Amino acid sequence: MSDTAPRTSTAPLLVAAAGGTPAHPPVWFMRQAGRSLPEYREIREGIPMLEACFTPELVREITMQPVRRHGVDAAILFSDIVVPLVAAGIGVDIVPGTGPVVAEPVRTRESVEALPLLAPDGLDPVAEAIRLLRAELGETPLIGFAGAPFTLASYLIEGGPSRHHERTKALMYSDPATWHALLGALATITTTFLTVQVAAGVQAVQLFDSWAGALSERDYREFVQPHSARVLGAVHGVPKIHFGVGTAELLPAMREAGADVVGVDWRLPLDEAVRRLSRPGTPAPVVQGNLDPAALLADFAVVEREVRRIVEEGRAAGGHIVNLGHGVLPNTDPEVLTRVVELVHSLTP
Amino acid sequence: MSDTAPRTSTAPLLVAAAGGTPAHPPVWFMRQAGRSLPEYREIREGIPMLEACFTPELVREITMQPVRRHGVDAAILFSDIVVPLVAAGIGVDIVPGTGPVVAEPVRTRESVEALPLLAPDGLDPVAEAIRLLRAELGETPLIGFAGAPFTLASYLIEGGPSRHHERTKALMYSDPATWHALLGALATITTTFLTVQVAAGVQAVQLFDSWAGALSERDYREFVQPHSARVLGAVHGVPKIHFGVGTAELLPAMREAGADVVGVDWRLPLDEAVRRLSRPGTPAPVVQGNLDPAALLADFAVVEREVRRIVEEGRAAGGHIVNLGHGVLPNTDPEVLTRVVELVHSLTP
Repeated sequence: MSDTAPRTSTAPLLVAAAGGTPAHPPVWFMRQAGRSLPEYREIREGIPMLEACFTPELVREITMQPVRRHGVDAAILFSDIVVPLVAAGIGVDIVPGTGPVVAEPVRTRESVEALPLLAPDGLDPVAEAIRLLRAELGETPLIGFAGAPFTLASYLIEGGPSRHHERTKALMYSDPATWHALLGALATITTTFLTVQVAAGVQAVQLFDSWAGALSERDYREFVQPHSARVLGAVHGVPKIHFGVGTAELLPAMREAGADVVGVDWRLPLDEAVRRLSRPGTPAPVVQGNLDPAALLADFAVVEREVRRIVEEGRAAGGHIVNLGHGVLPNTDPEVLTRVVELVHSLTP
Repeated sequence: MSDTAPRTSTAPLLVAAAGGTPAHPPVWFMRQAGRSLPEYREIREGIPMLEACFTPELVREITMQPVRRHGVDAAILFSDIVVPLVAAGIGVDIVPGTGPVVAEPVRTRESVEALPLLAPDGLDPVAEAIRLLRAELGETPLIGFAGAPFTLASYLIEGGPSRHHERTKALMYSDPATWHALLGALATITTTFLTVQVAAGVQAVQLFDSWAGALSERDYREFVQPHSARVLGAVHGVPKIHFGVGTAELLPAMREAGADVVGVDWRLPLDEAVRRLSRPGTPAPVVQGNLDPAALLADFAVVEREVRRIVEEGRAAGGHIVNLGHGVLPNTDPEVLTRVVELVHSLTP
């Protein structure tokens, strides 16, 4: 928890993030605002993703949908990790069924040096959406977010989503100077994106390093962690959640990057995650997670068993925010998500 | 090493697999027979994947190509993990750019019970290819392979490649009886596939559980390991390698399934893998791996540094077979693979 965080909030998410004991376990879902909701599919009909992300009224409505429907303990700003790149003027589009597509991949020192800065006013629609949301949300905290420099770099270098991140790693290994210049530029853009969100009123942030799990801890610490640490170190006044998929080996390094809360995927039990994250002389780690999104497609008896287990395993932590171990899958029955929230709220933290 | 293995071989791969010290570190590459080679792309021109897998002369030639070109310490049978399903009469095709596509996904108890058995003579072309290869390979060992029941089940349930394995997990969690019936049927098919290969002359086998890394250790042990153990327990006379991607948390459980050699991907250093795999009272583990395939796209100075590090870290093991931590990427320069073999052969085991 950062020095100027609102210590007096009783919102369960903020209490848990600060290592306190909330009235009930807080729960929200990564990608809770999205395709699992019929009302989301309806409102997005015919509207491209990036257009939606830059339309304050749409961001407000889409962000609110899962809060209204599920009664989750946090809203997460509807956005996309490429939004700050687009706001900076980098040619990126989001192609349905594919994901982000970069017009001119960034693979040379020259193209890194030609990257634009992000002027904060390019994010005015995002800031406006946050103000609208804070006015509507009341006691429910609003989480802002950004993609971490490594994950953004992979999109820029590969030109789009990548399974093996091979051009990314080739550049990282072969030309460390260009690599660090690129991640430095992306750390600056990411910092601007997050500080604008904090200034506009988000009460927590999550830094997504979606692809960091593709790296060994050695490479993560050398090529990625310093840049994520610079981003997290520049964000003040709100708790900082840091998450990636398949990062069981990276959790301590991700915490050391400056995370107040470490997101854990379903591959590692939370009690084991806490054990790995614990260091003598530091407060007990606060964790977020880690229900397998695919388990939500099973019978509810299975879902209930898994939720109870996760809340139990989370007791090993200094604080626990219940969440999935990855985003909500589009074919999830939203009714199941609502029942998960009700169940979590009935349990003792 | 199994009880009837050829203990007298001096082939470095077989010596290392048995926990001995070979003349030089053995090295081969997963997917060494494949799209990285121009001679492969040429010979496959116009020939569908499955047709190639069932044509003994093509299997022989494609399997030999990387042995001739790179001087690797093992050939691996050119095949595909769906070959035994096809041989059993299950409707599966391999669609270029997509992967295996299953005509009628298997999602109910009825469809599991309707699965055909695999008659060994359906594999006659594979056995013939193995005999041709043994006659040509001389001292270079031939590795057979199969996909593990979990990975095959994911293809059958999802109907094709899947990022999240959501239907697979939903069935696994919701209907364990059907799940275990399906994995039992696939274990029987896989056992037949491997025992036919051993009878025809392969000198080692690798069981690929490509997708096992999508599971927590708890779920792996409950839903997957017993079936992989049945397969590995039914194969006699050759060393058994077991590999999956992203399995840092599963390595001990995969060894306990009956592996003589455990494959490790690049996310975990080999010395740490050995530490996790070691158990009091059991021989030091033998490992295979774990160069990041993406690192092969970097400058050769980087490749050399990584290879030397991996051979050094592998000294912690009871034996070490140098390999990648995943398959050769199609855009790998084959010249780099040849240089890696030369480099490994110049090093002390």
